[in-house]
Amino acid sequence: MATGHHIAAWRHPEAAADAGIRFEHYVRLARAAEQAGFDLLFLEDAAGLREANANIASQTSRSVGFEPLSLLAGLAAHTSTIGLVATASTSYNEPYALARAFASLDLLSGGRAGWNLVTSASTIEAANFGAEGLCRHGDRYGRANEFADIVKRLWDPADRARPIAHEGENFSVFQGLGLPPSPQGAPVLVQAGASDVGRDLAARTADVVFTAAQTFEVAKSFYDDVKHRVREAGRNPDHLRIMPGVSPVVAETRAAAQEKFEQLQALIPDEVALALLASYLDTDALKGLPLDGPLPELPATQGMQSRQALVIEQSRRDGLSIRDVARHFAGARGHWRVVGTASDIADQLEEWFTGEAADGFNILPAVFPGELDSFVSLVIPELQRRGLFREAYDGRTLRANLGLV
Amino acid sequence: MATGHHIAAWRHPEAAADAGIRFEHYVRLARAAEQAGFDLLFLEDAAGLREANANIASQTSRSVGFEPLSLLAGLAAHTSTIGLVATASTSYNEPYALARAFASLDLLSGGRAGWNLVTSASTIEAANFGAEGLCRHGDRYGRANEFADIVKRLWDPADRARPIAHEGENFSVFQGLGLPPSPQGAPVLVQAGASDVGRDLAARTADVVFTAAQTFEVAKSFYDDVKHRVREAGRNPDHLRIMPGVSPVVAETRAAAQEKFEQLQALIPDEVALALLASYLDTDALKGLPLDGPLPELPATQGMQSRQALVIEQSRRDGLSIRDVARHFAGARGHWRVVGTASDIADQLEEWFTGEAADGFNILPAVFPGELDSFVSLVIPELQRRGLFREAYDGRTLRANLGLV
Repeated sequence: MATGHHIAAWRHPEAAADAGIRFEHYVRLARAAEQAGFDLLFLEDAAGLREANANIASQTSRSVGFEPLSLLAGLAAHTSTIGLVATASTSYNEPYALARAFASLDLLSGGRAGWNLVTSASTIEAANFGAEGLCRHGDRYGRANEFADIVKRLWDPADRARPIAHEGENFSVFQGLGLPPSPQGAPVLVQAGASDVGRDLAARTADVVFTAAQTFEVAKSFYDDVKHRVREAGRNPDHLRIMPGVSPVVAETRAAAQEKFEQLQALIPDEVALALLASYLDTDALKGLPLDGPLPELPATQGMQSRQALVIEQSRRDGLSIRDVARHFAGARGHWRVVGTASDIADQLEEWFTGEAADGFNILPAVFPGELDSFVSLVIPELQRRGLFREAYDGRTLRANLGLV
Repeated sequence: MATGHHIAAWRHPEAAADAGIRFEHYVRLARAAEQAGFDLLFLEDAAGLREANANIASQTSRSVGFEPLSLLAGLAAHTSTIGLVATASTSYNEPYALARAFASLDLLSGGRAGWNLVTSASTIEAANFGAEGLCRHGDRYGRANEFADIVKRLWDPADRARPIAHEGENFSVFQGLGLPPSPQGAPVLVQAGASDVGRDLAARTADVVFTAAQTFEVAKSFYDDVKHRVREAGRNPDHLRIMPGVSPVVAETRAAAQEKFEQLQALIPDEVALALLASYLDTDALKGLPLDGPLPELPATQGMQSRQALVIEQSRRDGLSIRDVARHFAGARGHWRVVGTASDIADQLEEWFTGEAADGFNILPAVFPGELDSFVSLVIPELQRRGLFREAYDGRTLRANLGLV
């Protein structure tokens, strides 16, 4: 989402349509983020489109871009301190090759690499890795657990120079990596699994967890649950950092922020908003209905969770049209959205942080570079005044700056 | 072989033992090569050690280093024109992911990427990709042929934006890459297979072929054979560039060059030389024999080819000891070696080039950075005087500089 996290960011007057394939665009963002003192730069990824309908896919600013590891290796050369985290799948990679590639990035960058482990549930992506290329035995998470264990052993500074001789259900790996450890020892392991098995895997192996929560209560419940699991796994809960995603739209006044936000919301193409709403509600019942009319009565389905039902009810109470409800869902992409002044936004981040619903945040600027720059110039100084954001980097490695050493 | 192509380069007084894991070392070499006008920088690779005996492996300066794609992405940021070619295996990768990674490097670098396709015959490397991780059906080259075809389709500028819907024996790949073509259209495809099936694959698909030949006759025979196969495959033989490897040791005088060379040869550890000689001759008969004594009578084995037999005979005629013969084999690594003045070396390169045994050369400096710098300062000006080396780059892409557009 090189044009920004908002689903219609690519239509914003400020957006460059080719941002996702311009290296200079990423250099600009990485330098701005480093200058501001962010812990890390995170690249989400999938090896292929994630939306089967090409018409919808082409309008979600989520098209295929650079392969993230090589992009980060390029960015490492243009930055000095910020962490560099790339997504890679346990379903479509081999643990020895993946461990080696991230250990290389870690060395290249002087100890700033991180791996965001995903297990790739998308059947659309799977179609690019079919036939006999990869035979997956056991379930996706069985493979992911073994994969993570192998990678962590290969990264372990004590195991770098000797054979690990792993023989498991999904993999066998004989040699050690041969590569020496970077200044941070091993790359940081990031995860975002929300399911039961995903939380267990994270509790057992991850350094950082990304999550999506739209309310304090949901975030707090997730936080407490995962920290509990970390303790159960015999680890210190401080050794896993939980970072909910948040998409801020900030301006000098509330009215200006709201106007920026509404301008973005108005850019969401109707068909994209409707397709995502239908997918979110797991229903075909919206087809052919007038967009300016109300939501119809919908049968409860497996896909409709209580939280979504609540939002739908509220939309009805507020008399929102189908278009408005659809835009509400589409713009947010499931993440927390904060719109207001620097002080409004700092208040909300502070509440989650001091209430132990978050150890930090995955900031998802709605539009690049505008909303990143606004966050940096308006919100960060406010957070610094409150003692909630660093004045300078603590160290030169990602682990040092996450306080994980 | 970050310390140099000579097997004992890591023991040279000028070598830095940690060269292979210092990014700055590669930046220095890449910039020197670009300044000099080389077509490309090539990284050989294997995902793991290639020598089962760890003691020998640790003394061959061929230890594991950076994963080459991320290393080249880093180097792309520090260079502007030189081509960047990385080795990757068709046995341990998936075509969609590999095509995407190289297409990304190609975009990142402004059209300078190349993929050196290898099929990975080593059983030692295979032990890192065992169990159910990759199921290989059919033979290695069956997989490689299908792999190369898929990658070339994914790279084809005409196929970038649409599904390729490939269903084959080894792979199925549905989507197109989504990434736009770089200024050179598609990455350059390099191969080095010497076998019959390897030559056919190259003739059908490659842009550049690397080869090892120690004499003009061997190089010429390979050149003619491969160009014949290119014609048979319906391609223009000028669209495939054949580049034998050559390891030059150059100095102002022949005596000084010879002295540099002998200094390097003397650094080869006896056990390394002996292990490689035993492997080359496919024999255990050298064990326990005095190193200063002559080679024993050896039964002809499958591993002993006529050319090797010839060298052995000659060694006997010259009264060489086992140590001397072993060092001769070990130092060269099977590649052509030229030792002498700039004029001597230019004469030999010119003979191969004008005799149509080579379209260019893969220069393998014996020691980094010394022998690269010597080649650049002594041999290249001599080649330029003869009109055999460019004065300035022809274009900004690798294809342009290889004359392949």
